[in-house]
Formats: sequence, structure tokens, C-alpha cells
Amino acid sequence: MSWFRPLAASAGRCAGSLGGQCLAPSRALRASAARPHSQVAEDIVKLLQAKQETHEVKKNFVLKTPKGTRDYGPKQMAIRENVLSTIISCFKRHGAEAIDTPVFELKDTLTGKYGEDSKLIYDLKDQGGELLSLRYDLTVPFARYLAMNKITNIKRYHIAKVYRRDNPAMTRGRYREFYQCDFDIAGQFDPMIPDAECLKIVHEVLSGLKLRNFLIKVNDRRILNGVFAVCGVPDSLFHSTCSTVDKLNKVTWEEVKSEMVGEKGLSPEAVERIGEYIRLHDGLGLIEQLLQDPKLSQNKLAREGLEDMKLLFEYLTLFGIADKISFDLSLARGLDYYTGAIYEAVLLQPQNTPGEEPVSVGSVAGGGRYDGLVGMFDNKGRKVPCVGVSIGVERLFSIMEQEVEYSERIRTTETQVLVATPQKNFLDVRLKLISDLWDSGIKAEMLYKKNPKLLSQLQYCEDTGIPLVAIIGEQELKDGVVKLRVVATREEVDVRRENLTEEIKRRTCQP
Amino acid sequence: MSWFRPLAASAGRCAGSLGGQCLAPSRALRASAARPHSQVAEDIVKLLQAKQETHEVKKNFVLKTPKGTRDYGPKQMAIRENVLSTIISCFKRHGAEAIDTPVFELKDTLTGKYGEDSKLIYDLKDQGGELLSLRYDLTVPFARYLAMNKITNIKRYHIAKVYRRDNPAMTRGRYREFYQCDFDIAGQFDPMIPDAECLKIVHEVLSGLKLRNFLIKVNDRRILNGVFAVCGVPDSLFHSTCSTVDKLNKVTWEEVKSEMVGEKGLSPEAVERIGEYIRLHDGLGLIEQLLQDPKLSQNKLAREGLEDMKLLFEYLTLFGIADKISFDLSLARGLDYYTGAIYEAVLLQPQNTPGEEPVSVGSVAGGGRYDGLVGMFDNKGRKVPCVGVSIGVERLFSIMEQEVEYSERIRTTETQVLVATPQKNFLDVRLKLISDLWDSGIKAEMLYKKNPKLLSQLQYCEDTGIPLVAIIGEQELKDGVVKLRVVATREEVDVRRENLTEEIKRRTCQP
Repeated sequence: MSWFRPLAASAGRCAGSLGGQCLAPSRALRASAARPHSQVAEDIVKLLQAKQETHEVKKNFVLKTPKGTRDYGPKQMAIRENVLSTIISCFKRHGAEAIDTPVFELKDTLTGKYGEDSKLIYDLKDQGGELLSLRYDLTVPFARYLAMNKITNIKRYHIAKVYRRDNPAMTRGRYREFYQCDFDIAGQFDPMIPDAECLKIVHEVLSGLKLRNFLIKVNDRRILNGVFAVCGVPDSLFHSTCSTVDKLNKVTWEEVKSEMVGEKGLSPEAVERIGEYIRLHDGLGLIEQLLQDPKLSQNKLAREGLEDMKLLFEYLTLFGIADKISFDLSLARGLDYYTGAIYEAVLLQPQNTPGEEPVSVGSVAGGGRYDGLVGMFDNKGRKVPCVGVSIGVERLFSIMEQEVEYSERIRTTETQVLVATPQKNFLDVRLKLISDLWDSGIKAEMLYKKNPKLLSQLQYCEDTGIPLVAIIGEQELKDGVVKLRVVATREEVDVRRENLTEEIKRRTCQP
Repeated sequence: MSWFRPLAASAGRCAGSLGGQCLAPSRALRASAARPHSQVAEDIVKLLQAKQETHEVKKNFVLKTPKGTRDYGPKQMAIRENVLSTIISCFKRHGAEAIDTPVFELKDTLTGKYGEDSKLIYDLKDQGGELLSLRYDLTVPFARYLAMNKITNIKRYHIAKVYRRDNPAMTRGRYREFYQCDFDIAGQFDPMIPDAECLKIVHEVLSGLKLRNFLIKVNDRRILNGVFAVCGVPDSLFHSTCSTVDKLNKVTWEEVKSEMVGEKGLSPEAVERIGEYIRLHDGLGLIEQLLQDPKLSQNKLAREGLEDMKLLFEYLTLFGIADKISFDLSLARGLDYYTGAIYEAVLLQPQNTPGEEPVSVGSVAGGGRYDGLVGMFDNKGRKVPCVGVSIGVERLFSIMEQEVEYSERIRTTETQVLVATPQKNFLDVRLKLISDLWDSGIKAEMLYKKNPKLLSQLQYCEDTGIPLVAIIGEQELKDGVVKLRVVATREEVDVRRENLTEEIKRRTCQP
């Protein structure tokens, strides 16, 4: 991957957890007559601290980020940018436009959209004015955006953070503040063509990230509802039965069964019958089998769902990805608003005994069709059919961060060249040279010292992975050249000043 | 600019305010045996609406974004991405690493850092657990990050939204949710080298965006404090006098004067003396003049500040940007935490009568040195000197959005080719072809209809600016070719299937 760049031999003296940005290995002593910002600084610290004490009772407050959140340091940012740029490229390849919405919405906009999960929404304090809540996902703001602007056709992506007051499990990438990368297609189209494209996108993203083995489970809410109907579940319990089935990837069937009977009040016979259906998973064959199922094929919704599922597999086969797709009757998805196809991608345990079924290690993408949501925001209930997918990148970040721990170092800057000098009193020459380089688009750094040692300057390159050094001393200045040094090989070559930019570009392959 | 791409002749039938993403000009009729997602959808809408009514008293809630915020549609996003990518390129050119922090911080982290402005902070509701507030800027979270991770040297950028419960003026780019693009250098270095780099960055960004004439004002808190001291302002009123001076870009000197005397309690004589100093603005000459000033040159802090300012101008001259810099004693900056150099970039009115002084139309960047802030988070008060700059991009977005209104259309997607067919029942062929194109990295779209008319397909390209059409019909299929049509010229050429990817890349100059 392009963001792993092996560095030169040196192990790097100060390559801490931040990827080794250490600008001055030995602290620079302030120059002669000293210009102490320090006096003002101290006054200000005292003043501000006094202010703080007025406001605060407890003086020793904890230095931390809020529960369930984290900072991204330079190393994490390098990983994040790599993952996001793969995803954005894919979304753009499929012709999507970008939109963005505010981090908070009117509380009313979110109310009544998430079912049981609404209790996890972060509200803002009432400080006068409107009541606001932090967004819980990007789907409801998207639906609000469509209704507000009366848009009936759009293919858009939206990459942003969402907020849930959930129990965090940060090592597994479960945070209270986390990114979602959503791609959605809104509009009235021929069946299953946009739905198939969403699955193609999941496949492209996960393949593009060179992740471990993955599987995309698909199902359809209409088939599930059909199953519930023919098993004798009353209509009014469809949603809540769906929520219970959704727990199957976390708890055992026995537990799900007891919740269905105990809490939801279904008859044990109905639950047994549901159990027989939802343990089924396979490809096209299963669809054909269920279309022949004497009970299920009598249910209108289920039959429609099965016909569409058949069409979906036809398209997925044309896309060449059907082998990664499993039609799985146990897939239910938590949220209420789905109306048709639903899907979820899971990563599989890498090492499997041959013959055994692969074990899922967690969901990394999910989505489906929600044809009713936009209509909830329209005062005449006008509907805009939508289908979309959300990539859960935090888990992907976690996995890649773990992989990186055991692999090569990551560069956290893109600097092509360090401007250095072996001579004293050459600060003005360095400033002039680096300014020229910046103006020609070269990524360049220098040490912020008047008279740095050449060794410190070379060491800085080793530590941070800068591949080239542009060395300028008296001789070079006189000759109108710069000595270009390749850090990895220690090769040095004189380059005429007017050819320097081109030579750096050539050697770093960065235009 | 690369993101303005002139489109083909057609004016575009449905180029609405969103930039004309109109996937199906005439709504597609559902295919024969109809697969109504609609029944489930309707049930769900009813169910969810019933839920909402339970929660809500007022049924006709307003469909809007919160006060002072806005959505970015595809057109705004295209502008935003262009501005941000110019800024990110510049930050990377200067060797900065990226970091990110959560959107909210512990309330304690923000308390006591912003002086009078603290009342504008958004607090979250107390829902149990920690008390949280939305970040007010990126500087305090950066200082918290440095102290928490004991980082003493870093050059980082951070681009993210911040939140202020201020009075919005959205047409002028003043929002309650807005982007800041911050570049900061933390560490103990030789004087004014990092400070000069921050100013170089402002210059590069504003030049890079090809903005109207701009000017960067600089001053130093130590010089200002020296001025206050020699004019007879008591030490305890330095900060509050600073806040008042800062209002000079919004109100007249008469108003500032009356606030100083009336509210702050300064003597009219002191205020007159301050007035004489702070109306001064010029370059190096003024620095020399003030160094000779009999009163000011006796003040230790002012002298240090003036010496550093002289050094700064020396470096700015080497960078070739001194002509855009004005040493301006009236520049004060609002926030308390600055300790040394401060600066602010303003855009100037384009049309000026020759000889007249140019009029500022608003600040677009600002920053300075804050050597005391990190120490406030360290339990031993250990200081990390910092200097940085923040680019105020919302105003830049506003300006560019207005310019775009009167100029060419912007493309909101990067799609290179539309896969089309003149024949019925060619959906499977189109799906296979588009899948191959996606897999070779081509940005491709198709209409989500089983049997679209060729004219609709060509019209879609005109409307959205897609430059090429890959047309496949029976003859092409038999011959193993695809007809590649150039939308702008209507030129058509048969391309062998195996050469198609390469030919599209060549013609769109996108590798």
C-alpha cells in the first residue's frame, strides 16, 4: 500500500507512538540576548488559572477525552486517510455526489425514527432557542435533506461522524463518536438495479482495502415478514420480532427463543417454525426452494421478496460477486425503517480448519432499502424510494492499526526534501531556498534553528522518513548548485539550482 | 480552476440548484408484474408516524436545519473540496502531520480559556456521566492533546468544524457551525522562524485560491502591552483593554475610546496616548521608528517585541512576501491566550480609487503565538511554546459560491463515461460492461432502467457533464467492440473491448 514507505536503515531515536515527529532532538537554547516570551506567558498562565479557579471547584480535573471517544494521532490519521480515500474513490467511481449536513439536528427531526435506540441520542442543553440533538446516523439527516429540498433523484455519499451514547468497546472499534461512510441512491427505478450496485460497492471497498476474507449476507424485510406471517406471528409484533432476530449474531438461538416466547409473547410453536426458516442460508438454490415452499409461496409479500432476491442474484452474478454473497434468513437488521432488501458484510476469521464453516468476527458494513423514511418528513407524505449502504470504518481502522503495529513504519508526513546546511550563519540562504521550493510545489522542511548541526539535520530525515536532503554551503552557493543527498543510499550529487525542483520531483515520483 | 469544467452546448433541462443530478428525467414506470415495496413502506410510514405522534405534541414541525447552520449540497461540496484541498496541499507542503480530536470535550477542558466568549459555548445536556461541551476552536483541544500525550514537538494541521452560539450572519459566511483549518508548530525553537512560516502559509493559501487583493496585519502582544504600560494603563487592565482595541475593525475609534473611558475606567489622557500609537501602521520603517521612541524603547517587553518584529520582517523579506504584510499597532486579536506575535489576514475591496487606502472586507485568517496555553493543562505547569494560524474558510466558501453563481457550471461528479445501449433487453450486457469498467478503475454510470431510451441516456450526459458514452448494441456485441461517443462533439468511434479502459483514460486524462 502506498502509505507504507520503508525507511532508511536507522531505527530512529525518537520514534514514539506518534510516528517520530521530533523537530529538535536536543532542545535549542534560546539565542544570546534572549527574547523571553516567557514573562508574558507566565503572567497569562497565572491570570487564566486564576480565572479557571473562579469557575471551578475541583482543581485537579482529569486530562482525558470524553468517554467512548479518542484523538487520532498522526499515525492513526495516516491509516484513516488511506481507508477513507479508498472508500471515496469507490463512491466517486460510481458517480456519487457529496453532501454534508450539520452535526446536530432539531430534536424533532430525530424523534420517532430509531425505535428502541432513541435513548442513545445525545441531546444538547437547552440554552434558549431550539432544542437540538447530535445526529445518530447519516440516513435520517439525508431523508430530512431530500424532503426539505424536494429532491426526488440523487446518488450521494456522505462521510461524517455520528454519535451514540452506547456502551463503548474501544479495542473492537466501538466508539460513542464514530465515522460512517454512507452511499445512497434515491429515486424511483427499475427493481434491484440500485440495490445490486450497493452490494457491488461493499465488495469493491472491502476488496480494495485488501481485508481478510469477508461475506455479505442478504435478506429482504418482505421475506422475513412473510416468514413471521406464515409462522403465526401477529402483524403488530413483526417489528419487535425483527429486533429479536437481529440479536442472533450476538447471542444463541436458545436466548433469542426465550426472548420471543417470554418477552414478546409468541407461542413456542410459532418460534419453532421461525427457527426452522431462519437457520437457512445459501445462494440461488435456497431462493428456488423457498419459492416452492407450500406455505411461504402463498404469502404475497414473501413471494415478491423472493422474486426480487432472485433478480438481485442475477445482477450480482453479472457483477461477478455472487460467490461472496449469502442469502441468509437470519439477517434482520436493527432499525425499523427498512422496507425491502437488507444486507450486512462481515469479516471472517482468517484461519479455519478446512471443511468448517468460517466464523464471523464482526460486521463492517450494512444497509438496505427504506422506501418510507423520506415520506415521514413530507407534509403530504410523498415518498422517495431509497436504498443505501453504510461502511463502518472504525472497525476497519482498528484492524489496520493492529496490523500496522506488527508491520513497517508509517510515514505521517509527505515531505520530499529537507533543506540543510553544514555551515554557520546560513539561515538566510536556507530560508530563501526553502521558499523557492515551496513556491514550486515541493514539500520541504528545515530545522527551526539558526545554526543546526549537519548531523541533527540528517538524523531528522532518518527519523521522519524524508527521502532527500538539499544541502547548501559556501561552495554550493558560489557554484550555483545544491548538493542533493539520497538518505537511504547516502549518495550525493550536485544539481544546478535551476534544475533542483525537477530533480526532486523525478526522484520522489511526486509531480 | 480544475473543478470548473465547461459542459457541452445544451443548457440542461433540469439543472436545478443542485447542479443537475437528475437520474431519470421521466419517472420510470415499474415493470409489468409490479413488485410493490409500497405496501410494506406504507405500513411502516403509518407505524412510525403513529410513534412520532406519541412523542410529539406539535405535529407540524418545521423542516429546517438548526439556526446558524446549513447543509452543503453537491455544488457547495465541490467548492468546499476545492478550497480544502488547496489548504491541505499547502499544509502538507510544509511538512505538517494531521491530527483529529472529538467534536466535544469535557466541559472543564474548555472552562476558563476563552474569556468573555465562554458564554457562546454549546453545552450538552446532562444525561448522566460526564459534562460535555462542543469545541469552540481547535487550539484548546490541541493544547489539551499535547499536554495529555506529553508531546513537546509537533507540526500539525487540523481541519474540522467548531461551534459558537453567536449571532449568525450567513450571507457573509458567519455560521454557528463552521470549519477551521489550523496549522500550528509546537516546540522550543529559535525566535520567529516558525512564526514567519505561519505567515508564509497564509500567503500561499490566499494566493493559491486566487483571491482578491489581501493584506496580512501583524503585531505583537508584547508591543501592545508595552504601549499600554507607557500610556499609563494599569497591568490588571491589559487584557480587557486588548479586547476593546480588538473591536476597532468593527466600530469607530470614538466608540472604542468611550468604552475604554466609560466601561474600562481608563483616564482620557491614557486613551489619547494609546490612540496615537495604535493608529500607526507601516512596515520595517515603523519598527525602527518605535525602537527610537523615547518612551516605548524604555519598556523591556515592547523592545523585545520590536526586535522580534524586525527579525520577522527580515524572514518575510527572504520569503518574498513582505509587501503583503503590514505592521499594524491596532491589531489586538480577541482571545486572551496570545503571548507574542499576532496576525490577521483581510481581503481588500477590489475596486479602489487610485491613491485611496484599500478597504478591508473581512478577516479570513488569524493566529499568533500562545506560549502559555499547554502549561495550563499540565499539572506541573510545564510549558510548550506554540504558534499557529487558522484559516477561516466559510468566508472563502461564501465568496467563491457567489463568484460561481455568475460563472460557469460546476460538475458535482467525476464520472468519465455513461454505459448506454440503443437496444431493448440489454440490461445484462450493460451490467457486465459497467462492472468491468468499475473493476478497471473507470468512473462509470448507467441509468437504472431496464430499457432506457438512447435519447434519455445522451440527455443525462448533457445534464451532468459526463464527457463520454460507451454505447453497446447487438452489432457492437457481435463485433467485440464498443461505440465510444464524445458528448461535446458527437464524434463516435468503435473501440475494441480490450482497449476500452485505456481509450477512456486517454480521452479523459484521468489515469
